Amino acid sequence: MSGVSYEGSALLAALMVCACAHQPAQTQFQVDRGAERSTSKGGADEFTGEVRVQMLMAPNGVRDFSAAYVTFEPGARTAWHSHPAGQTLVVTEGAGWVQLEGSERVEIHPGDVVWTPPGVRHWHGGTRESAMTHMAVQQQVEGGVVEWFEHVDDETYVGGK
Amino acid sequence: MSGVSYEGSALLAALMVCACAHQPAQTQFQVDRGAERSTSKGGADEFTGEVRVQMLMAPNGVRDFSAAYVTFEPGARTAWHSHPAGQTLVVTEGAGWVQLEGSERVEIHPGDVVWTPPGVRHWHGGTRESAMTHMAVQQQVEGGVVEWFEHVDDETYVGGK
Repeated sequence: MSGVSYEGSALLAALMVCACAHQPAQTQFQVDRGAERSTSKGGADEFTGEVRVQMLMAPNGVRDFSAAYVTFEPGARTAWHSHPAGQTLVVTEGAGWVQLEGSERVEIHPGDVVWTPPGVRHWHGGTRESAMTHMAVQQQVEGGVVEWFEHVDDETYVGGK
Repeated sequence: MSGVSYEGSALLAALMVCACAHQPAQTQFQVDRGAERSTSKGGADEFTGEVRVQMLMAPNGVRDFSAAYVTFEPGARTAWHSHPAGQTLVVTEGAGWVQLEGSERVEIHPGDVVWTPPGVRHWHGGTRESAMTHMAVQQQVEGGVVEWFEHVDDETYVGGK
């Protein structure tokens, strides 16, 4: 899978936003009401388990990053993936795990801010026992913000090494 | 006041982060623990009333934006200011007001996402009766993320027009 092009589903819109090379700059003041915002189910290609994504903001021709709240039920996690300009997570609820390929799993809690550098394969999700919600923020590179790889198998998820 | 240079206080660090032109890229995985993060009082030059700022992330040589949680007690607000690359607010608690110069005040609530375009003078804060917390996210331009102007006087704050 490639994050370079916009593939249509709300989930992909949330995590793989294409700003499209010549998007006109958003020069108008804009208030997007939370009460009117929908939440999408995380797709089976990009996630394991029950995941909900609430898109907060997309690149707009001035703003160069996207952000979404992502909620993982216990046991749920992303597939392995990387970001061309890195990714910042801000944990808002619950308890979760994040793991970089080749490193030990790290447990994260509300208020923690996680920086994963560009091009580094990693995954994140809830713990076995706890759901987690984080805001995920990532800048685009040529319209893409993520590259997806294979699922995280149960042994890796549980083992954490 | 200018947002171009780093002026030292924690508050200014939060809202006026200088990434410094040749900052080395942060290529290491990093977890900043919320439990260890301090909160700063909003400075009297940039705010009216009781304001607390919790810096979440600064530009790091790859990431080109800064973000902070800002909490305004009832009646508290920013001074008039603008951002060279615009600003996105995500309201997380309470109820607040935002106003662009020449426009009517708008009330905002948790979940609302507010986009203010580059160079537009505006202010935000709690309402008269309610505190508000928002995350504020802004990209840097040549190391600066904000330009500050005069305080919002009581008549403007209360009048909202």
